[in-house]
Amino acid sequence: MSPADREREGAAATSRPERRRFIAGGIGLAGAAAALPIASRAAAPPGAVEHPVPQDPSKVPGIPLADESYGARSQFETEVRQRYKTATPLSSWTFTPLQDSMGIVTPSGLFFERSHGGTAVIDPRRHTLYVHGLVARPRKYSMREVQRFPSVSRLHFLECSGNGLTEWSKPTLPTVQGTHGLTSTAEWTGVPLATILREVGVRASAKWILAEGNDAAAMTRSIPIEKAMKDCILAWGQNGEALRPEQGYPLRLLVPGFEGNMNIKWLRRLEISDAPFMTREETSKYTDIRPDGKAVQFSFEMEAKSVITSPSGGMQLDGPGFHEITGLAWSGHGTIRRVDVSVDGGGTWREAVLQQPVLPICHTRFRLPWQWDGRSTAVLQSRAVDETGYVQPTLGQLIAVRGLNGPLGSIYHLNAIQSWQVASDGKVSNVHHY
Amino acid sequence: MSPADREREGAAATSRPERRRFIAGGIGLAGAAAALPIASRAAAPPGAVEHPVPQDPSKVPGIPLADESYGARSQFETEVRQRYKTATPLSSWTFTPLQDSMGIVTPSGLFFERSHGGTAVIDPRRHTLYVHGLVARPRKYSMREVQRFPSVSRLHFLECSGNGLTEWSKPTLPTVQGTHGLTSTAEWTGVPLATILREVGVRASAKWILAEGNDAAAMTRSIPIEKAMKDCILAWGQNGEALRPEQGYPLRLLVPGFEGNMNIKWLRRLEISDAPFMTREETSKYTDIRPDGKAVQFSFEMEAKSVITSPSGGMQLDGPGFHEITGLAWSGHGTIRRVDVSVDGGGTWREAVLQQPVLPICHTRFRLPWQWDGRSTAVLQSRAVDETGYVQPTLGQLIAVRGLNGPLGSIYHLNAIQSWQVASDGKVSNVHHY
Repeated sequence: MSPADREREGAAATSRPERRRFIAGGIGLAGAAAALPIASRAAAPPGAVEHPVPQDPSKVPGIPLADESYGARSQFETEVRQRYKTATPLSSWTFTPLQDSMGIVTPSGLFFERSHGGTAVIDPRRHTLYVHGLVARPRKYSMREVQRFPSVSRLHFLECSGNGLTEWSKPTLPTVQGTHGLTSTAEWTGVPLATILREVGVRASAKWILAEGNDAAAMTRSIPIEKAMKDCILAWGQNGEALRPEQGYPLRLLVPGFEGNMNIKWLRRLEISDAPFMTREETSKYTDIRPDGKAVQFSFEMEAKSVITSPSGGMQLDGPGFHEITGLAWSGHGTIRRVDVSVDGGGTWREAVLQQPVLPICHTRFRLPWQWDGRSTAVLQSRAVDETGYVQPTLGQLIAVRGLNGPLGSIYHLNAIQSWQVASDGKVSNVHHY
Repeated sequence: MSPADREREGAAATSRPERRRFIAGGIGLAGAAAALPIASRAAAPPGAVEHPVPQDPSKVPGIPLADESYGARSQFETEVRQRYKTATPLSSWTFTPLQDSMGIVTPSGLFFERSHGGTAVIDPRRHTLYVHGLVARPRKYSMREVQRFPSVSRLHFLECSGNGLTEWSKPTLPTVQGTHGLTSTAEWTGVPLATILREVGVRASAKWILAEGNDAAAMTRSIPIEKAMKDCILAWGQNGEALRPEQGYPLRLLVPGFEGNMNIKWLRRLEISDAPFMTREETSKYTDIRPDGKAVQFSFEMEAKSVITSPSGGMQLDGPGFHEITGLAWSGHGTIRRVDVSVDGGGTWREAVLQQPVLPICHTRFRLPWQWDGRSTAVLQSRAVDETGYVQPTLGQLIAVRGLNGPLGSIYHLNAIQSWQVASDGKVSNVHHY
């Protein structure tokens, strides 16, 4: 059972189908069709085989070990990614069920998705990476050639810059899956981009790199050369095995700490230049509109952010006593230094325990014990501080700086403190609390 | 493509079916039937859907995002756990394909299995943990009650004490999956056992805890109370989601650094006592026989060990030039301090780079660049040193101390340096090299 299950179990009226509709209350996005309910769920949870359940498991033989296997979840575990109801499932999001998260690793099957043209199907034996532009030796690499280079593995989070985009003006999506589920963490393996750039002989005039995907959207973004040389990775591995298809199989660019869509998936081309390429996804999209109507050029690092994943919206506390408050914090600028938690809407704060290891540009799990009296309302908040000293702002502070200048108020880079209200009956809901 | 694929690709004659027979050369175990070939593999790799592969993925729509999903691997990825051909698949092992490993996290679908009565099928809503014996307040906990306690998450390896048992007297299994595949790493989440022991009020006379599984083998082991209070975990989470069924769903005891079978799966009972229980799995099995015929009482910590996972047995180097040597090191006593690598069978050593983070009682990835001239034979070895200063022994050193006193020489706790021979044609094989 997951943390969410535990909390839900206490509620007479809650049931699994309920959480599957978290998106039904969503609002239309620019360019999206009218809100459609999520299709009813498949009969069996994906990846599960239904075995008969013995009355006493110790009195009957268990399931024999298969000669060859790639294991699946228990038939009792049914968490899924949920898709946001965009007009087409070819340009859409699916959200990680953070209410069920534990630790810092996101299971690859539940890692959030964002694609602009669906998931490309690529044969790794035919896939190539072309590196050209301001280089001495332009070259096309096969996957085998890319993988011959010395590799590194690093645990890093990714976050879509649109994470929380529905939440600027009013609390909209009821659960943390909807409000924050466009971030996940994995252990990535690949070759440092700097290695390949040195191989092709990047010229002194080089300032930017265009990264281009081999998907139907041919996604493109411009990466500053300093970042490319510092810590970018051409990644083929995720959580100890090959990248998952929806994460860019067989090769993606990892740009640690920068907004999600710069981490180009299905990577097929790197063009080195002396200027940014001003692609659609860094001009008319994915930019923050200032009060004067102009867009900020550019927004790269995801600022420090945190959220309480349990208790969180849609859960039901099952009575008074001890409840562990736990959640995730992360920063595109490095490590999380501390997380403070409030149960009175920011009136008073207590420092949470950070679960080791605390790694740079990686989800950090925090925990704090909390006694609930079983009748008082409470407003739960978490506030992250990263290694630069940056303090996660309140929504009021963020709006005061950024304004509400897009069709949804603002759209991107919402990293404000999240508030969950615990009602006197133990029901937890998404609220705005200034 | 995996590291093993990369190396294999260079070989004209090698193909996937070949690696699937790694176990065919195995020897009979005590109590096992005559060697049987592994059954032919299933038509499609488990968990994969076969999508048509477009000529140019950027010219056609990709796969639409599903409304609800739990993702699967690419159809091109086919690594599997392999079962050792014991007499019955109800008491058997499956090995993690370490030749394809990267980083330190083992994908849950490839985490090694060992069970003595098959995988128990347990409904978490009915599962209970009974804690009794030398306690003030014996109690039966539901899963929900167990999960209400404050939790911790930790990355730890597990290793079956029989890992490598075929390799004492002569090199037997051709690949690292067979020689070392009974170890894997995951991020585990659960409640510290010490918390529960304090809740039930363990008496001052308590010295040992019997842990009992709810599987057909009703697996039992005795755990020293000091270890229980120090760092044991009642774990329900693995890699960010519920424990996998074959890892003890819904609850297992995690005894960090101690031999695998003490980490009781499908945990249903803890009995606190003043003496060890002398169960079958700590007396007639899982013990090391001394030269005088008596068994050592007890063997708990898994000593420091390492293995090169690439290049490793069964691979084929595809010509001269750079090859990254990479592998895993671990110790039941804490962190890995250093790993040395030799390419001349222990004549000379170079210190490998340890991939950060280096965590206690956790796989540590090491890497070292190596230039191969494309014609000389080489014997690759790795040697781990842990935080206690313990140095991984050669096989000769280990046998000199332990003897070869079981039916297979010895059986358990083989942590000697592994040798892989690279032949002049680039073929890598399992050898004993003193």
